[in-house]
Amino acid sequence: MSSPLENARIGIVGATGAVGTLTLRLLSERGFKNVRAFASSRSAGKELPFGDGKLVVEEATPEALRAGDLDLCLFSVGTSRSEELVPHASAGGAICIDKSSAYRLVDGYPLVVPEVNGARALEALERDRIIANPNCCAIPLTTTLKPLHDAAGLKSVHVATYQSVSGAGAKRMEALRAESPAEHNLIMDWTWEGEDSDEESKLRQETQKILELPELPVAPTCVRVPVLVGHSEAIWIELEDDLSPEQAADVLRGAPSVRVLDLPEFPTPKDAAGGNEVLVGRIRCDPTVARGLSLYLSCDNLRKGAALNALQIAELVLAAEPAASRSR
Amino acid sequence: MSSPLENARIGIVGATGAVGTLTLRLLSERGFKNVRAFASSRSAGKELPFGDGKLVVEEATPEALRAGDLDLCLFSVGTSRSEELVPHASAGGAICIDKSSAYRLVDGYPLVVPEVNGARALEALERDRIIANPNCCAIPLTTTLKPLHDAAGLKSVHVATYQSVSGAGAKRMEALRAESPAEHNLIMDWTWEGEDSDEESKLRQETQKILELPELPVAPTCVRVPVLVGHSEAIWIELEDDLSPEQAADVLRGAPSVRVLDLPEFPTPKDAAGGNEVLVGRIRCDPTVARGLSLYLSCDNLRKGAALNALQIAELVLAAEPAASRSR
Repeated sequence: MSSPLENARIGIVGATGAVGTLTLRLLSERGFKNVRAFASSRSAGKELPFGDGKLVVEEATPEALRAGDLDLCLFSVGTSRSEELVPHASAGGAICIDKSSAYRLVDGYPLVVPEVNGARALEALERDRIIANPNCCAIPLTTTLKPLHDAAGLKSVHVATYQSVSGAGAKRMEALRAESPAEHNLIMDWTWEGEDSDEESKLRQETQKILELPELPVAPTCVRVPVLVGHSEAIWIELEDDLSPEQAADVLRGAPSVRVLDLPEFPTPKDAAGGNEVLVGRIRCDPTVARGLSLYLSCDNLRKGAALNALQIAELVLAAEPAASRSR
Repeated sequence: MSSPLENARIGIVGATGAVGTLTLRLLSERGFKNVRAFASSRSAGKELPFGDGKLVVEEATPEALRAGDLDLCLFSVGTSRSEELVPHASAGGAICIDKSSAYRLVDGYPLVVPEVNGARALEALERDRIIANPNCCAIPLTTTLKPLHDAAGLKSVHVATYQSVSGAGAKRMEALRAESPAEHNLIMDWTWEGEDSDEESKLRQETQKILELPELPVAPTCVRVPVLVGHSEAIWIELEDDLSPEQAADVLRGAPSVRVLDLPEFPTPKDAAGGNEVLVGRIRCDPTVARGLSLYLSCDNLRKGAALNALQIAELVLAAEPAASRSR
């Protein structure tokens, strides 16, 4: 017997990309049965594996998304495409979970990491039903920082990222596979916004919004590394109150979606890849401030950093909204 | 006509390794003519290219190094081998420049980056003539921080490293070349000393010693990345006095061995590799403190991070010591 949640009518827009493909796999694993795949006209008609069967890709047109026969839509497309299509799905009555940066920093749209601010997702149900999924570095960072903030109050954050190429899309993964080791480099393949990259601006502003600490000073440096899957972050935080590394580790051991590693174990992208947790380790005192900690994390940027987080939001809002109210 | 410096009798101990091989190349490029190569018994008798000719590798025995026919010895061997051999070369009258960590943190032995504390190298000439060459991350870090400290006073340092595999030796470079991209990982391949890796302890303590700021709080996180050559560092510093990013860039433009990059240019290991400068860019305000800066650097860890720095020390002390006094 399937639950109402499993029967929810789900649309995946951008189903053929790296995150879209993984979203389909996660939906199947989690028992969703009523799923449709949408993509550009170029991919329409293609078949995608889904569970034991297949889905035929439909063209993602405003009309199709507006038709009113979807309970929830997950968008894994670029920002301009999201801006174009999300309003139609929303007008058609679907709850929209958008993984682009189109709505993330717009006032009134919740930006949600379920473990951190899940309740904000439900507020969208009273409005135009659009929820934004955060940046792939902001998700593991806030998942880790929220319990520490609740325990001792965050005053500031320094973060250096080590971001895998899958965050830049499937084509960049192919390019890395074709590269010789002598060609491997560390780059900053983002757009410059003043002195920051747009990735650094996102990481700062999204962290402030998700944690609801709009004045929190966040100093990020974002770097792309020649790793296929898994983002890592070296983090230093200053705290209001005393919190020893041991106490911080205990707090994080009790936190959802976090796995604490003790030396000689430490987080690596390889260990994080394919898993659903944020691996956190190297929890030490930061000697530069009176009350500070140093941490290091790794997380699968396609799963918790993208597809899985969006799906967790979907399950949260679908569970909160009675199936009856969806069958309008 | 060759200068007395070029006629100095130089010995390279560990001549067959990655740094030793590069040292031979740099010595030849810089006009040194009187060079001998030493290595373990396994490599003795091998021929190594040197300029237009060849050097026959001699076994690095205590007796050979003690014979008194070398003006200066460069050691590119492991710490225990340095501890064993350096005293013999020193007793034989050679100035010893040791790239291992055997002498780096021992009181009374200068730890030298010529641009930062070159004068300290000369003090060794009055003693047992042993000079330590710093860790490959401490060299570019202090080269960059010294002029900023002189301008505005350093209060604290956060640093996340992105270290290439050549820092771990030629075998690890071969291993990376044999790896598929799916195997690439970020690791911490050092020994744990309490909560820090020994690499992090070295970076902290050597930075304090070179800058002669024994109480400077330094918070390092060291990470090995799948890049062949070139170390990078994301750095945040707190300062005593006001120093804008523009002023800091001007200070660094006037600093020796530093090249400042302005956006859209930024330092990369690939651009640093094969060059002799520390590339510094991404100079921004650090929003977490009243007077703080964020920077990012890349440096060839085999050149300025090792062989070149040692050779600069060699040239400094050879120039300071009249050739006559060497011909004892």
